[in-house]
Amino acid sequence: MSDRAYVIFEEQQRARGIDLDQVKAKLKAFKIETPSWGYGDSGTRFKVFKKQGVPRNPFEKFDDAAQVHRLTGICPSVAIHIPWDKVEDYGKLKSHAENLGLAIGAVNPNLFQEQEYMLGSVTNADPLIRRKATDHLLECVDIAKETGSRDLSLWFADGTNYPGQGDIRQRKAWMLEALAEMYKAMMPQMRMLIEYKFFEPAFYHTDLADWGMAYNYAVKLGPQAQVLVDTGHHAQGTNVEHIVAYLIDEHKLGGFHFNSRKYADDDLIVGSMNPYELFLIFYQILSAANDSDLSIGQTVNQIAYMIDQSHNIEAKIPAMIRSVMNVQTQYAKALLVNHSEVAEAQQRNDVLEAENAVRQAFEFDVTPLLHAVREEMGVPADPMKAYLNSGYPKSILSRGIGGASW
Amino acid sequence: MSDRAYVIFEEQQRARGIDLDQVKAKLKAFKIETPSWGYGDSGTRFKVFKKQGVPRNPFEKFDDAAQVHRLTGICPSVAIHIPWDKVEDYGKLKSHAENLGLAIGAVNPNLFQEQEYMLGSVTNADPLIRRKATDHLLECVDIAKETGSRDLSLWFADGTNYPGQGDIRQRKAWMLEALAEMYKAMMPQMRMLIEYKFFEPAFYHTDLADWGMAYNYAVKLGPQAQVLVDTGHHAQGTNVEHIVAYLIDEHKLGGFHFNSRKYADDDLIVGSMNPYELFLIFYQILSAANDSDLSIGQTVNQIAYMIDQSHNIEAKIPAMIRSVMNVQTQYAKALLVNHSEVAEAQQRNDVLEAENAVRQAFEFDVTPLLHAVREEMGVPADPMKAYLNSGYPKSILSRGIGGASW
Amino acid sequence: MSDRAYVIFEEQQRARGIDLDQVKAKLKAFKIETPSWGYGDSGTRFKVFKKQGVPRNPFEKFDDAAQVHRLTGICPSVAIHIPWDKVEDYGKLKSHAENLGLAIGAVNPNLFQEQEYMLGSVTNADPLIRRKATDHLLECVDIAKETGSRDLSLWFADGTNYPGQGDIRQRKAWMLEALAEMYKAMMPQMRMLIEYKFFEPAFYHTDLADWGMAYNYAVKLGPQAQVLVDTGHHAQGTNVEHIVAYLIDEHKLGGFHFNSRKYADDDLIVGSMNPYELFLIFYQILSAANDSDLSIGQTVNQIAYMIDQSHNIEAKIPAMIRSVMNVQTQYAKALLVNHSEVAEAQQRNDVLEAENAVRQAFEFDVTPLLHAVREEMGVPADPMKAYLNSGYPKSILSRGIGGASW
Amino acid sequence: MSDRAYVIFEEQQRARGIDLDQVKAKLKAFKIETPSWGYGDSGTRFKVFKKQGVPRNPFEKFDDAAQVHRLTGICPSVAIHIPWDKVEDYGKLKSHAENLGLAIGAVNPNLFQEQEYMLGSVTNADPLIRRKATDHLLECVDIAKETGSRDLSLWFADGTNYPGQGDIRQRKAWMLEALAEMYKAMMPQMRMLIEYKFFEPAFYHTDLADWGMAYNYAVKLGPQAQVLVDTGHHAQGTNVEHIVAYLIDEHKLGGFHFNSRKYADDDLIVGSMNPYELFLIFYQILSAANDSDLSIGQTVNQIAYMIDQSHNIEAKIPAMIRSVMNVQTQYAKALLVNHSEVAEAQQRNDVLEAENAVRQAFEFDVTPLLHAVREEMGVPADPMKAYLNSGYPKSILSRGIGGASW
Repeated sequence: MSDRAYVIFEEQQRARGIDLDQVKAKLKAFKIETPSWGYGDSGTRFKVFKKQGVPRNPFEKFDDAAQVHRLTGICPSVAIHIPWDKVEDYGKLKSHAENLGLAIGAVNPNLFQEQEYMLGSVTNADPLIRRKATDHLLECVDIAKETGSRDLSLWFADGTNYPGQGDIRQRKAWMLEALAEMYKAMMPQMRMLIEYKFFEPAFYHTDLADWGMAYNYAVKLGPQAQVLVDTGHHAQGTNVEHIVAYLIDEHKLGGFHFNSRKYADDDLIVGSMNPYELFLIFYQILSAANDSDLSIGQTVNQIAYMIDQSHNIEAKIPAMIRSVMNVQTQYAKALLVNHSEVAEAQQRNDVLEAENAVRQAFEFDVTPLLHAVREEMGVPADPMKAYLNSGYPKSILSRGIGGASW
Repeated sequence: MSDRAYVIFEEQQRARGIDLDQVKAKLKAFKIETPSWGYGDSGTRFKVFKKQGVPRNPFEKFDDAAQVHRLTGICPSVAIHIPWDKVEDYGKLKSHAENLGLAIGAVNPNLFQEQEYMLGSVTNADPLIRRKATDHLLECVDIAKETGSRDLSLWFADGTNYPGQGDIRQRKAWMLEALAEMYKAMMPQMRMLIEYKFFEPAFYHTDLADWGMAYNYAVKLGPQAQVLVDTGHHAQGTNVEHIVAYLIDEHKLGGFHFNSRKYADDDLIVGSMNPYELFLIFYQILSAANDSDLSIGQTVNQIAYMIDQSHNIEAKIPAMIRSVMNVQTQYAKALLVNHSEVAEAQQRNDVLEAENAVRQAFEFDVTPLLHAVREEMGVPADPMKAYLNSGYPKSILSRGIGGASW
Repeated sequence: MSDRAYVIFEEQQRARGIDLDQVKAKLKAFKIETPSWGYGDSGTRFKVFKKQGVPRNPFEKFDDAAQVHRLTGICPSVAIHIPWDKVEDYGKLKSHAENLGLAIGAVNPNLFQEQEYMLGSVTNADPLIRRKATDHLLECVDIAKETGSRDLSLWFADGTNYPGQGDIRQRKAWMLEALAEMYKAMMPQMRMLIEYKFFEPAFYHTDLADWGMAYNYAVKLGPQAQVLVDTGHHAQGTNVEHIVAYLIDEHKLGGFHFNSRKYADDDLIVGSMNPYELFLIFYQILSAANDSDLSIGQTVNQIAYMIDQSHNIEAKIPAMIRSVMNVQTQYAKALLVNHSEVAEAQQRNDVLEAENAVRQAFEFDVTPLLHAVREEMGVPADPMKAYLNSGYPKSILSRGIGGASW
Repeated sequence: MSDRAYVIFEEQQRARGIDLDQVKAKLKAFKIETPSWGYGDSGTRFKVFKKQGVPRNPFEKFDDAAQVHRLTGICPSVAIHIPWDKVEDYGKLKSHAENLGLAIGAVNPNLFQEQEYMLGSVTNADPLIRRKATDHLLECVDIAKETGSRDLSLWFADGTNYPGQGDIRQRKAWMLEALAEMYKAMMPQMRMLIEYKFFEPAFYHTDLADWGMAYNYAVKLGPQAQVLVDTGHHAQGTNVEHIVAYLIDEHKLGGFHFNSRKYADDDLIVGSMNPYELFLIFYQILSAANDSDLSIGQTVNQIAYMIDQSHNIEAKIPAMIRSVMNVQTQYAKALLVNHSEVAEAQQRNDVLEAENAVRQAFEFDVTPLLHAVREEMGVPADPMKAYLNSGYPKSILSRGIGGASW
């Protein structure tokens, strides 16, 4: 049935003027980075529930990530978090990854889990703490050199809980100082991806609270600094795809941390709460990819697609497979938008037709397409089923309870 | 200067028709319950920062709470959380409290920190887990009998993270079952206070998500069941004082968990983010207190005022003193509303004058009044200063780091 | 291709255990009521843009509504708004409707567009205004008798803009008085559908602010009173499908006002902002429809599905056709949920599988199914295209600019 | 009593190290601009209620504004809105204003009330409409030359209601084109103040949606372009004072549109919903005013404080007096912050003391101070009472019903 379903799908799309060969090529070239910490235990402030079989060290996290790549074919790199993934010999970790067919992806500094950082890291009123924090940023640049990572993903928990607690403008200046020192230490091929967040763990003011603040730092620092959009880090109602389009237009969109949210930074499986929003993000990206200004297309090509989630109650590896498939599904749907049809409707101010031309692509069932692409890539048509039927889930139970968590 | 300030204040208020003797009497009768867990370490999902001097057991928590009562004179009871405050002999804890001039207040069951409760406690699909959870509720009724507590405060973390994860209507029925069993076990003088919460730790649906759901259970259960309003548990923009007035009108407001929020359930010091909202809550309460229907006044008299906060970065005891003072301050301001002035303006549909009559009370500086009341009560005029200048802060340092946390 | 697409679709669904004959039967029985005011001009507080061809009176609104029914086959009734649709002879309007194959649906009182209602209608401090407002409610009951309408849909703009402006509890009592008087006047087969709204046009407190308040009135009034859920009338983040399930479980869900929102009460085309939410609402409804308690199924059968939108910038009739098709699409998808698959996964606490069993149904393309159903119903496979290719759009241009607006 | 109250106030503040002479001087120098449209009728999309006595033309609006200035002494300029305040001879309007002791303040173009702008003005897909819109911007520059206005306040209603409706990046470029053309036409002493808004009347995407977008345009345009912060134009939870501090730090805060909101852009009387937020905004401003970098102080000195409200249900002139007094009150309170006390607590990371040092200033009753300042300025101690007791309210009734509205 699957083959016949694909034949019908193909006819349908060709009739709409969609070049399916190109669509398939793009789907094969599309890569999603999974995070090492997504394989460990995580939770809320109320409780971290412990699962049996969770990896006990960075090497086992890569083992699990390799399963996701083996079954989906599109997850060849893994982001690491320092010090959660601190090892004595990064060369050894790199070799381990390469033996599994993986690369080490973005390096993520951690500036929120040491006692000193309670009131800020690079924005702390205490210069010794700022120094320590900046040194950790520099350490991460060094690690990135060892691991061969292109991207340094920076998220700061810095902020205040009360009016008056900190000097907002002074903290702004201190953060720039730290970023500038780090920027200078980077290799020419490296990128600094600056993440922002509306709130949490700071509850009055967050030093890097929105895209505008991250963008402004990136502009001041230079072309190697760009913005990282975490899909869960916005105020309710925020039009995330607008921000995406805006940042691309300024050549400052560096990448994504994908996840879903209904309320705050819920860190649920991407695509599970509002799949249409994910589709619309890709619609903006793909719309920009075709820009006559080639530098826009170049920006698009460099976007890092990364998962960043907390699997508090789900089985970790299946949750990651589901996440990757959800992203792939919405990307595939967005590839079915007929951009010239949209553009024509926009030009004649036909609101309903323009809206329809975009939404229509979302309504297609891309399962036959994805099955076909996976077959051509030599991975299982249904990666989730393949995983559950493999021996891997059982094999990791021997790790016991109490693996890595954040 | 303070005396002269009070003389002026007195003249000013008498000129407005405010009976200051009654105001003072109400301020002296006003009681706030502090929570045992507010004296321990707490944090966000990212980190619990450890403070030196945090109490190491329930007895030390009462020691700290006694300081707050000694200095403010209005905090004679302490809420406990089971199993955080589980002791072998509750009689011993009760004696310890009484020796400190304290009583044990509301008993709070905890149904969110055991592995079994990951997917729900009283709403879990597994009947054994539901049984275990209900048994814990019954255990708390027994504890309340031992401690002489009137109130059982129920907050459930139960909910789901994904569409389809749970059967929403079935879970609703299961929760009613558990509550009904607990209700039946209560002594006639006991109250069940049912708390609701918009979200967290559940991120798709929360079984008890809003006042309407808590209220509906309370109606079905009977007169000993009422609603507990946590000021931080609402959607952005929610008019909390409207809900307060509504519940009083239905004789179903049982009490408060006070704290502040700017974003989600931030659990900051009450009165620190939007003091006017706290004032307006008291304005509604005091407006109802005067109702010609005496049963409304009775409901108001039974309201339990409780603090429920997470002092993630603050010194614990000072944070509690500040919280108590903030509540007292807004209560004092609300006592200065001239209700007949408001009513007259309302009756002639004079929007600006009615608004002014309420806001005006908020704009008074009640420091002279509170100083006078505290003097008459025999407590320090400035409880915070008195605490910081006492030997207590230094004395508790010997407890070391790593005390109780939740 | 369409036929072949349906053959594949049929195989696919039968393999999943879906009874397509039943699905089709339900799709044919599904009815959506369109609102007379959705055919007229509307706008924001900044501007009402005028369109050529907008109906000039209630009769022309029914003419337009008849087009929507002719092309979709599922819109046989039209809600009216008094006094917007006030006519001298409702018998004449009823005959006009019947000649067009339509019935007059819900009667909607309007208590917000007369000078007297500036500070409230049934909650106004002035008893004469309350009387006038209640009389209008009674007038609408009389109109419903003439039009043969079962439902009276009540939305009150009543509320206040400032703290202190009104006596919240007094206004609550006044509203109950008015509703009780209206309730008493209703015929036994009539229903009062009570709508709630988070805010707007009142900006401090809204007398009927949430489902809990509407529900409580409905309980006090009796079995003929139920709640009306407008999908755009909630705080950001609110889980609307939870409320839907809850109200059904209490036999108090009377109907819907469908529309989309991203921010406030945006009144956009239903299904255009977050189609998954609309699907999840239907998933809850259909899940309840199968309840072993037959009274739940009866409640579900009585639900009134109504559109309530403001087409500020769109062509009116096409906007309505699109809306109806969007609702039908999500209803069709929800009919593909395999409920026993969901229930089994829930029972074994398999979070990912339960979620997948629901979401999967959303991912199917139901176009072949809807084409087949429409063909069997004798309406065009593509109602929008059929409308645009008909002579109707051109024919109404002679109405000119400046038709009815609200 | 007032004199004695001031004596006590003075002692109290001097004891805290506050220089009351400087505080008074700043209060006398503080100016608030009122908007011509705040004197006319306004409403929601549901209804514009008409008041008797509303001004019938721009000249009468200035008459009313003169009353506000006469009684408060701090409102010497009035913002105008074109075409609402379009007159044949702006010289005549200017003379009229000057005779009343007023100046014409900011000029506000209006690009949202003509049929052509339904789908955008400067971002419309139709080049003729973009041209027309840009010409209106140029017209406003010309008007500003005639009126001697320094500031041009730009708010664009431009945006889309549906995904796909417009090309987001193309619209971004079109807006820059229009702004650049206007910028070029400005005189050297003129400023372009760019306002942003989260949503409404556009409900999917707003071209100028947040401070980051307004700021980015201002940076690209040059030093005469700055950002205008409307306090009601943010997502729920947004820390507005953070944005204020941020923009000052970048020398890009040009001014404010003051009003209050609880939900969306409610346009209520400033200071009526959350007075503490207004205080915290001034705290940030005054904190920056003392910066050792003098250019920051210069930026602060140029900030334009303007009211922008819709008095839907209130008497217009009293609503404006109340608004002005509310702003003055919070400004006065912020002047009582002891900045070195705050800074010291911040430097030693004393969270509670730093918070207290700020909040404490808010808790003072500044009525005695304001009475003293008003007396020294020769205006009534209670401007509201003075207005209501004057003959003006009665005198304007002869204007009848149906004056200017927007």
